[in-house]
Amino acid sequence: MLRFGILGAGRIGKVHAATIANSGRARVTYVADAIAEAATALAATVGANVADIDTILAANDVDAILIATPTDTHADLIEQAARAGKAILCEKPVSLSVERIEACLPVVEKAGVPLMIGFNRRFDPNFAALRQRLGDGEVGDIEMVTIISRDPAPPPVSYIERSGGLYRDMMIHDFDMARFLLGEEPVLVHALGSVLTDKAIKATGDVDTAAVQMITASGKIAVITNSRRASYGYDQRLEVHGSKGMLRAGNVHMTTVEAATAGGFKADVIQNFFIDRYVAAYAAEVNTFIDAVLKGTQPTPSGEDGLMAQRLAEAATKSSQTGEAVRL
Amino acid sequence: MLRFGILGAGRIGKVHAATIANSGRARVTYVADAIAEAATALAATVGANVADIDTILAANDVDAILIATPTDTHADLIEQAARAGKAILCEKPVSLSVERIEACLPVVEKAGVPLMIGFNRRFDPNFAALRQRLGDGEVGDIEMVTIISRDPAPPPVSYIERSGGLYRDMMIHDFDMARFLLGEEPVLVHALGSVLTDKAIKATGDVDTAAVQMITASGKIAVITNSRRASYGYDQRLEVHGSKGMLRAGNVHMTTVEAATAGGFKADVIQNFFIDRYVAAYAAEVNTFIDAVLKGTQPTPSGEDGLMAQRLAEAATKSSQTGEAVRL
Amino acid sequence: MLRFGILGAGRIGKVHAATIANSGRARVTYVADAIAEAATALAATVGANVADIDTILAANDVDAILIATPTDTHADLIEQAARAGKAILCEKPVSLSVERIEACLPVVEKAGVPLMIGFNRRFDPNFAALRQRLGDGEVGDIEMVTIISRDPAPPPVSYIERSGGLYRDMMIHDFDMARFLLGEEPVLVHALGSVLTDKAIKATGDVDTAAVQMITASGKIAVITNSRRASYGYDQRLEVHGSKGMLRAGNVHMTTVEAATAGGFKADVIQNFFIDRYVAAYAAEVNTFIDAVLKGTQPTPSGEDGLMAQRLAEAATKSSQTGEAVRL
Amino acid sequence: MLRFGILGAGRIGKVHAATIANSGRARVTYVADAIAEAATALAATVGANVADIDTILAANDVDAILIATPTDTHADLIEQAARAGKAILCEKPVSLSVERIEACLPVVEKAGVPLMIGFNRRFDPNFAALRQRLGDGEVGDIEMVTIISRDPAPPPVSYIERSGGLYRDMMIHDFDMARFLLGEEPVLVHALGSVLTDKAIKATGDVDTAAVQMITASGKIAVITNSRRASYGYDQRLEVHGSKGMLRAGNVHMTTVEAATAGGFKADVIQNFFIDRYVAAYAAEVNTFIDAVLKGTQPTPSGEDGLMAQRLAEAATKSSQTGEAVRL
Repeated sequence: MLRFGILGAGRIGKVHAATIANSGRARVTYVADAIAEAATALAATVGANVADIDTILAANDVDAILIATPTDTHADLIEQAARAGKAILCEKPVSLSVERIEACLPVVEKAGVPLMIGFNRRFDPNFAALRQRLGDGEVGDIEMVTIISRDPAPPPVSYIERSGGLYRDMMIHDFDMARFLLGEEPVLVHALGSVLTDKAIKATGDVDTAAVQMITASGKIAVITNSRRASYGYDQRLEVHGSKGMLRAGNVHMTTVEAATAGGFKADVIQNFFIDRYVAAYAAEVNTFIDAVLKGTQPTPSGEDGLMAQRLAEAATKSSQTGEAVRL
Repeated sequence: MLRFGILGAGRIGKVHAATIANSGRARVTYVADAIAEAATALAATVGANVADIDTILAANDVDAILIATPTDTHADLIEQAARAGKAILCEKPVSLSVERIEACLPVVEKAGVPLMIGFNRRFDPNFAALRQRLGDGEVGDIEMVTIISRDPAPPPVSYIERSGGLYRDMMIHDFDMARFLLGEEPVLVHALGSVLTDKAIKATGDVDTAAVQMITASGKIAVITNSRRASYGYDQRLEVHGSKGMLRAGNVHMTTVEAATAGGFKADVIQNFFIDRYVAAYAAEVNTFIDAVLKGTQPTPSGEDGLMAQRLAEAATKSSQTGEAVRL
Repeated sequence: MLRFGILGAGRIGKVHAATIANSGRARVTYVADAIAEAATALAATVGANVADIDTILAANDVDAILIATPTDTHADLIEQAARAGKAILCEKPVSLSVERIEACLPVVEKAGVPLMIGFNRRFDPNFAALRQRLGDGEVGDIEMVTIISRDPAPPPVSYIERSGGLYRDMMIHDFDMARFLLGEEPVLVHALGSVLTDKAIKATGDVDTAAVQMITASGKIAVITNSRRASYGYDQRLEVHGSKGMLRAGNVHMTTVEAATAGGFKADVIQNFFIDRYVAAYAAEVNTFIDAVLKGTQPTPSGEDGLMAQRLAEAATKSSQTGEAVRL
Repeated sequence: MLRFGILGAGRIGKVHAATIANSGRARVTYVADAIAEAATALAATVGANVADIDTILAANDVDAILIATPTDTHADLIEQAARAGKAILCEKPVSLSVERIEACLPVVEKAGVPLMIGFNRRFDPNFAALRQRLGDGEVGDIEMVTIISRDPAPPPVSYIERSGGLYRDMMIHDFDMARFLLGEEPVLVHALGSVLTDKAIKATGDVDTAAVQMITASGKIAVITNSRRASYGYDQRLEVHGSKGMLRAGNVHMTTVEAATAGGFKADVIQNFFIDRYVAAYAAEVNTFIDAVLKGTQPTPSGEDGLMAQRLAEAATKSSQTGEAVRL
C-alpha cells in the first residue's frame, strides 16, 4: 500500500486523489493546500489528514509525494521531496526554466528517488495504443509525426502573462509526445507563431496560434500545430507515417448521434474539457506511477523527459521570436 | 462488334446508348421512340438511324435489342425480339404481372436467345465488390441481409397509379438484391406498409413507406426497408451479417468536405439522383451484356431472376394489404 | 438521503451499488444475496450491512429496494417490497410471463409505491440524446425505427433453456426501445427466427437470430434485428427516420486508432462487454430513480412499460414459432 | 466553338482532348507530338489533324493552344503561342526556373493573350467547394491551412534527376493550393526534407519526404507535408482552420465497402492513381479555360500564379538545403 501526500488540492489534485483512492494499492494520507478549505474538502473525500508541506515531507506514513501546486513551486518541492526520500509524481512542467530543471534533476538523482513527470497524454488509451502499435512495427519505420492540439478557448490574459508562453505552457505536451513517438531527439526546431484569436495576447509578447517543425539526425520529421481556440471542441490528434503506412488517433464526439437532413449529415462537437478528454489518461498515469514505485522500477516520463521537452519549448520560443531555425 | 437497336430514347436509353458507343466493341445502329424528336436526337449523338420497332427487329444489322420503353410494353417486345432472334437487354421489370412473365419466358427459351434484365444495382461497384467478398467467404456463412432503399422524393401520383405499387416498382430492386446476396430463395414474406409522406398516395391504394422481412428454407433472413422520401439524398445501403462478421456498403456524399464549428461536424448530403448514383452500375451492366453475348454465354440477371423478384413483389403486395405472411 | 436495500450482489448489483454510493444523495444500508460471501463483499465496499431479504424489507432504515436477483424472483419480490411500502427499482424483466406481470402491477398500484423497471438502454447518453432530439422535432414526425442488437457471443445453452427465449430475454430491450422511440403502441407483430450460430440452441426450442417488424395504428413501423453473436463486438445501433430526415446513434470503437496500410484502413472492434458499453446508462438509470423518489414523482420506465414490452415479446415468440403475424 | 491545337499527346494531353471533345463548345483541330504514332492516335479519337508545332501555331483554325509537352519546353512554347496570338492553357509548371518565368510572362502580357496554368487541384470538386465555403465565411477568418500530399510510390530516379526536386515537381501543387486558400502571399518559408523511402534518391540531391511551413504578413500560417510514398493510396487532404471553425476535404476510398470482423473494421484503400483521383478536376479545369476564353475574361490560375508558386518552391528548396528560413 503506497501512501501519498498530495501537495495541491486543486482541479488536478482532486482527479489524482480519486485515482489513488480507487487504486486498491495506494491511499492518500495527507493533503496540503494554500487554501485551507480546499485541503480539508479533498482530505475528507479520501479519508486523509490535512497538514502543511513540511509536515507531510517529514511524515513517516508518506511514501510518495504528488506535486499539483502552481508551476513555479515544482522544482523546489521536487528537491525537498527528494531530500526527504520520497517518490515523486510531479505535474508538468518541472520549471519554465531549462536551467532550473538542470539544477533540480541532479538533486533527485543524488537522492536516488523515483521521479515521474505528469505528461498525461502518453497515457491516453488511444495514444498509448498507437504508440504500442508503432513500436510493434505495424507501419514500419517512423518517417513523420503530426500532432494537432487546439484548446477550446484561450485562458485569461492574466494566466498567459505568467505561463511562459504557448510553447512552454501548451505545446510542451506536444514536444513530449513528439519525442515519445519519434524515439529520437530533434536536432533542429523551427517555429512560426501569430496572434489571431485575441489581440490582448499580443501585448503579453505571446502567440495564440503556432506551427513547429523539427527534424532528427536520421531525418525523421515532426510537425506540431497549436491554437488557443477551436470552436468545435478540444482538438487532440496524432498522425504518424511510417514506411509501411499510417497510424492515427483522434477525437471523441460528445455522443455518437448523427442527424441527416436536407442540410447534410451532422455529428456532435468533440469533447471540449481537458479533464473529460483525458480522464482515462490521468488514471493510467497515476496507476503507472504506483506500479513503478511498488515494483522499484523507474517510472517514465522521467525528469530527463521533462528537461528535453522544456529544451524544445525554449528553442521553439526563440525561433518563433526571431523567425530563424534553432539547432540543438 | 455487337450492333444494337435501342427501343426507347428516354433518360435510361440515352445512358445506355452512350455506354454502347464508348464500349469499343458494340455500336448503336438504330433508335426507335414514340416521340420522333427524342429518337432523332439520340440517334444523332451515336451515329445511328431512326426507324420504327418492326423495322429494327427485322434489320440484318441488329444483333441485340435494348428495351427501354414503358414497362407495359416490355413483355411484348421481349417476345417479338426473341422471335426475331435478337439478344435482349430489357429494363426491369419484364412485367408487373407474374403470369405475363411466366408466359413470356418460354418464348425466349424456345427462341434460344440471350435475355438479361436490367437490375442495375447488382453492377454497382460497391455492391458488386461486397457480393464478391461474400462469395469469397470473408464473413463466413450468410445469416442476415439488410437492404435500405430510400428515394429522395416521391414520384407524381399519376406515376404511382400505374406503377404496380411500391413493392413492384421500387422494392423490386431490393428483392433482386436480396436474392443476389442470399444465394437462396425466400420461402416466406411478410410486409408492412404505410402512407406517411403524401396522403394523395393513399387514394391510389399504394404505400410510400414499407418494411419487408423474408426467410429462406435454411433460415437465412432478409430485411428490406423502403421509403419514397429521404431529405438527405438517395439512400442506398446494404449490410450483410455472416458467421464471421459483417460486410456493408453505402452511400457517397456529394463532396468529401466536412465543416466543424460550434454547431458540430457537418458533411454534405449524399448523392441524390439515381443516374448519378448508379452511373458506373449502368455502364457495367451494359458491358456485362455485351461481353456475354459476344462470348455466347448467358448473361445474368436472367429472365428467371426477373420472374423470381416479381413473385416476391407480388407476395409482399399481398402481405402488405392483408397483414398476413405469404408463403412461397 | 435515500437508503437502499440491495437484493442480489451479482454483477449488476455491484454496478448499481457503486452508483448509489457515489450519488451523494443515497446510500446502501443493506445487501442480501443467496451467496453469503457475495453479500459480504459487496456490503463491505459500500459500508452496508448484510441481512436476509425479509429483514431488509422490514427495516426502517430502508426507503428503496433494488431488485437484482434472478428473473424468476422479480415479481414476488416486487409484491413483497410494495407491501412493505418501499420504492422499487427492479431489473428487467418483471417476469417472463405476461400474466404474472398483470397480477403483480395492481399490487404495486394498491401500495402506492414507485416502481421503475431497469431498461438501462433508455439512459444511454447516445440513445437518450437521440430520443430528446426526436422529441424536439429535429427530424419531423417519426416514420420508421430500426434497432440493431447483436451480442458478442451466445450465452451457455443452460442459460438459454431458462431464459424465456431470445424475444423475452434479449429482444425485450429492443421492444422497450421501440416503444420509447415510436411513442405509440404496435398493433401487429411479425417475427422470423432461426438457429444459425449454435445447433445446440435448436434443441431448446429457441432461436439465436431474429428479425421482427411491427406497425402502430397510425402506420409507424419498427424493425428490430438480433443475433446472439457478432465477431466484431457488442453491436447496438438505432436509426430513426422522420418526415424531415434521420437520426442515428451507434457504437463506440475500443480506441480511436486507425491504421492505413496497403491492406486498407482498419479501425478497432467496438466495445464488446455490455457493462462497459452501458456503464453511463446504468449510472443514469439509478440516478434517475433516486431523483424521482426523492422528488416524489413516478419514475419511468414504469411497471406498465415492463408489461407492454413483455406483451410484444410474447407476441413475437408466438409469431416466430408459427410464421404468422400476431395482432395486439 | 473554340478550336484547340494540342501540343503533346501523352497521358494528360489525352485527358484534356476528351474533355474538349465532350465540351460542346470547343473542339480539337490539330495535335502535335514528337512521337508521330501518339499524335495520330489521339487525333483520330477526336477527329483532329496531325501537324507540327509551327504549323499549328500558324493555323487560322486554331484559337487556343494546349501545352502538354515536357516541362523544359513550356516557356518557349508559351512565348511562341503568345506571339501567334493564341489563348494558352499550359500544364504546370511554366518553368523550373523563376528567372525563366519572369522573362516569359511579359511576352504573354505584351501579346495580350489569355494564359492559364494547369494547377488542376484548384478544380477538384471537393477542394473547390471547400474554397468556396471559405470565401463565403463559413469558418470566419482564415488562420491556418494544412495540406497533405502523398504519392502512392516514388517515380524512377531518372525522373527525379531532371524533375527540379520534390519542391518544384511535387510540392508546387501545394504551394499553389496554399496561396489559393490563404488569399495572401507567404513572406517566410521554412522547409525540412529527408530521404527516407529510397536511398538512390539521396544521390540526386533531392528529398522524398518534406515538411514546409510558411507565414503571411498578417500572421496566417500554412503547413505542407509531402512524401513520395503512401502504401494506402494517393493521399490528398486539406484542412483549413478559421476563427469560427474548420473545413476539411479528403480522400475517396476505392469502394464504400466496410468489413467488420474479429480483427476490426476495415475499409478499402483510397484511390491511388492521380488521373482517377483528379478526373473531375481535369475536366473542370479545361472547361473553365474554355469559358474564360469564350467570354473574354482572364482565366485563373494565371501566369503570375505560376510564378508565385515557383518562387515558393525555390525558397523551400534553398531552405531545405540549408536548414535556414528564407524570407520573400
